[in-house]
Amino acid sequence: MWKPDRSSKKPIFQQISEEIERKIACDEYPPGSVLPSERKLADQLGVNRSTVVQAYEELRSTGMIESVKGSGTKVSKYKLGSSINTPNWRKYLDGGTFMPNLPTIRRIRSELRKDSPIIDFASGELSPDLFPLEAVRQLLQEESFSAVLGYDDPQGYLPLRRVLVSLLSNKLNVQTTESSILITSGSQQSLYLIAQCLLSPGDAIAIEDPSYCYSLPMFQSAGLRLFRLPVHPEHGIDPDDIIALHRQHRLRMIFLNPSFQNPTGRVMSTDQQKRILKVTADLGIPIVEDDPFSLTAFDGNPPKPLKSLDSAGQVLYIGSLSKMAASGFRIGWLVAPHSVVSRLADARQQMDFGLSVIPQWVASEFIRSGRLERQLDFLQSSLFHKMHRLCATLKERLSDHISFTMPEGGLNLWCKLNGEMDADKLLEEAVRRGVIYVPGSVFGSERGYIRLSYARPETGLIEPGIERLAEAIRSL
Amino acid sequence: MWKPDRSSKKPIFQQISEEIERKIACDEYPPGSVLPSERKLADQLGVNRSTVVQAYEELRSTGMIESVKGSGTKVSKYKLGSSINTPNWRKYLDGGTFMPNLPTIRRIRSELRKDSPIIDFASGELSPDLFPLEAVRQLLQEESFSAVLGYDDPQGYLPLRRVLVSLLSNKLNVQTTESSILITSGSQQSLYLIAQCLLSPGDAIAIEDPSYCYSLPMFQSAGLRLFRLPVHPEHGIDPDDIIALHRQHRLRMIFLNPSFQNPTGRVMSTDQQKRILKVTADLGIPIVEDDPFSLTAFDGNPPKPLKSLDSAGQVLYIGSLSKMAASGFRIGWLVAPHSVVSRLADARQQMDFGLSVIPQWVASEFIRSGRLERQLDFLQSSLFHKMHRLCATLKERLSDHISFTMPEGGLNLWCKLNGEMDADKLLEEAVRRGVIYVPGSVFGSERGYIRLSYARPETGLIEPGIERLAEAIRSL
Ligand SMILES: Cc1ncc(COP(=O)(O)O)c(C=O)c1O
Ligand SMILES: Cc1ncc(COP(=O)(O)O)c(C=O)c1O
Repeated sequence: MWKPDRSSKKPIFQQISEEIERKIACDEYPPGSVLPSERKLADQLGVNRSTVVQAYEELRSTGMIESVKGSGTKVSKYKLGSSINTPNWRKYLDGGTFMPNLPTIRRIRSELRKDSPIIDFASGELSPDLFPLEAVRQLLQEESFSAVLGYDDPQGYLPLRRVLVSLLSNKLNVQTTESSILITSGSQQSLYLIAQCLLSPGDAIAIEDPSYCYSLPMFQSAGLRLFRLPVHPEHGIDPDDIIALHRQHRLRMIFLNPSFQNPTGRVMSTDQQKRILKVTADLGIPIVEDDPFSLTAFDGNPPKPLKSLDSAGQVLYIGSLSKMAASGFRIGWLVAPHSVVSRLADARQQMDFGLSVIPQWVASEFIRSGRLERQLDFLQSSLFHKMHRLCATLKERLSDHISFTMPEGGLNLWCKLNGEMDADKLLEEAVRRGVIYVPGSVFGSERGYIRLSYARPETGLIEPGIERLAEAIRSL
Repeated sequence: MWKPDRSSKKPIFQQISEEIERKIACDEYPPGSVLPSERKLADQLGVNRSTVVQAYEELRSTGMIESVKGSGTKVSKYKLGSSINTPNWRKYLDGGTFMPNLPTIRRIRSELRKDSPIIDFASGELSPDLFPLEAVRQLLQEESFSAVLGYDDPQGYLPLRRVLVSLLSNKLNVQTTESSILITSGSQQSLYLIAQCLLSPGDAIAIEDPSYCYSLPMFQSAGLRLFRLPVHPEHGIDPDDIIALHRQHRLRMIFLNPSFQNPTGRVMSTDQQKRILKVTADLGIPIVEDDPFSLTAFDGNPPKPLKSLDSAGQVLYIGSLSKMAASGFRIGWLVAPHSVVSRLADARQQMDFGLSVIPQWVASEFIRSGRLERQLDFLQSSLFHKMHRLCATLKERLSDHISFTMPEGGLNLWCKLNGEMDADKLLEEAVRRGVIYVPGSVFGSERGYIRLSYARPETGLIEPGIERLAEAIRSL
């Protein structure tokens, strides 16, 4: 029987996937046939199950094999490039300029897609019971749908831009106008539009380390050169680092997430904000402020964004309903000089012809009718409660192994693993025991850290989840 | 007073926009000040109003000036690059790889954005009275919203993919599975994803001439090389042209719109379909079949797509609710091998994290509950009626000047201008008289043609619109 060659330089998972590919090509595994389970194949070949998982993942990504819930992994009916008359799709799958997601992120996603009940501290989103489902249901029944169903203004539904102008002014001290707002599919699309349309391949940008941005292949897909701004645990970003990076690389833009930063949970102080605005204004570098979390502040008193202090018009400000209401709305906003908004609106016409008016109408009614206000009240106390439960459990069970600072808002707890523990290795042990999180490496250079989202697991699963994590730690 | 230099090689509109820019820079026109109306400035400078319109358009596109409904054109508050500490946004506006829209399209859009009541044969979309607004309103009140509000499967909302599998099978003989469908923001996003993620800069593709694709800067933005497949009025595309193009340029993909083609209204015969499938399969070239119109067939008997004959799995099939229900849904679908769908789903995560579940839920309920069926019945007869009214009026008033073939579905009438009339010049005369259409040049090399959309104007405005067009023609 075939075995992987451990002396070869080729990674083992790749040897495995190529061998399976060969078997498919010569019809040893014909279209529709069932492949051995991951566990079984791992035993046969004498490798880790995760290696087989990776090999299958690889084959799945090219469409060679498919996983069907309940009936295992099968060879796809359309074998790529096998019949003479079928175009060789594989040639096309390698085309374009889109980088795939990080392997760890793909790994986590594939675990979460499985049916087995894993306790999820990995997803940076609200648990279903925190979504305003009942409020949306009511809204749909009570308010009469009134928007025009035609192609709309590419900047977004005007009534939504109007309520956002008030919301931003009242809650966050951000003063803007309806013509300076672009509605996007969450913060994600705002970031994408900026990366694709305002920056050019080869441009240098700075991002925080650690930061959510590291998990985004989007910046690499746009051909940008990424440079790190270390976030010091105590005093945050050092403005001198900005100056030094700019001297060396001519920064074209800086991406920051100043309030309840993902993953650290840090809030930038007003002093710090002023210093950073000053330095970057002097250098003429625009800042992209990604602010999905500020309105989750547990005490109902959100930190004010950089944008509220932006007298030079240098900040592109991004917000979203995803983390304060529901990610399924796919409603985000970019506040920027009109010229920028209008350029991006024009470009997005080519991508998707603008956003559906239906969720835009729902979002505008949701905000206008006071339902967002009620959601925020409910959310702030629920998140506080869940965060507290998580921190208390960690102190009780894992105080020797994990240390952290309690956040005052946001969805995430950033934990330092004491000693020499490897967060990526620990992940495998954790998954085996039915609990999952995101290792710090996904967010940049930090290796001995993990991010636990307290928003995602049901409250009742926080303790059992940490119990499983504790077992995983003990096993190392 | 300053006047444009008619002996200069620089276009007059550009001289004007540069002069205004200078005046803004030196604060002759300070931020917020009102510029002279287009008509007034045109008189002062002794140029056509359309030249001033173009100059203002230019300035607007850089954000230097803004048009505010009811209060004319003003200098923007944020003067680009004017204050020392404001980043020079202009440098950023030229970044990225997005080509602007064609000037004629921008011109038409800007006319349509104006308040003045112009009769619109230009927009390829339904008039508001043809949208199923009442049905959507009812649906929202009667069906209880039940989808999960979290991040969803990037391929799209499963119940929607399921109803589409039946719809495509029942109506169009297209057999597929839910895992081979990707839900996108209209057809547009499917086209965008294909251009960006399956093709690479420099790749050669073939598009029909004339075709909607010519109006899309999207393909150029993706760095593709476009080649024309002439659509002969009688026998459509010549398969030999495909072979010849492929020999010369190695075609990577062919984009076709076989049913009620935009703009010609042509339907490809089954024979023709088979020949084209055969030739392209032999050459191994995939076809993208853009099919937004087939279900509008006036007799309720839609032409069957290429995809229904696609035994080799070589056709990427695209559909959309835009033209058969409402463009504001922004719901489209791509049917493709699973490997392709899964690659594109992965890439679109980076762009927008998937589509809002709300319009996807509305669309799935709309189809499931039989409302789409009723919409199609209503639409088919309404469109037939409007098409008929347009053709009858043209025959009555303009039979000497315009000839056409009556379409059997779709939204557009493709008209040949007899004699030497210039469709672009005629456009200016038409706009002056309050009627607008799209000149053939927008769709490719055809110059003596115009596209009249009968779907867009209210029925009662079709005759007065053609009356105005007739006046414009007489004036030339
Ligand atoms: C800091 C940050 N920005 C942006 C996003 C994207 O969210 P969305 O596109 O749903 O608004 C996330 C999601 O995790 C995030 O954590
Ligand atoms: C042939 C064709 N394809 C695609 C589209 C894009 O439509 P949507 O993205 O709204 O589905 C249009 C719109 O005019 C069209 O005419």
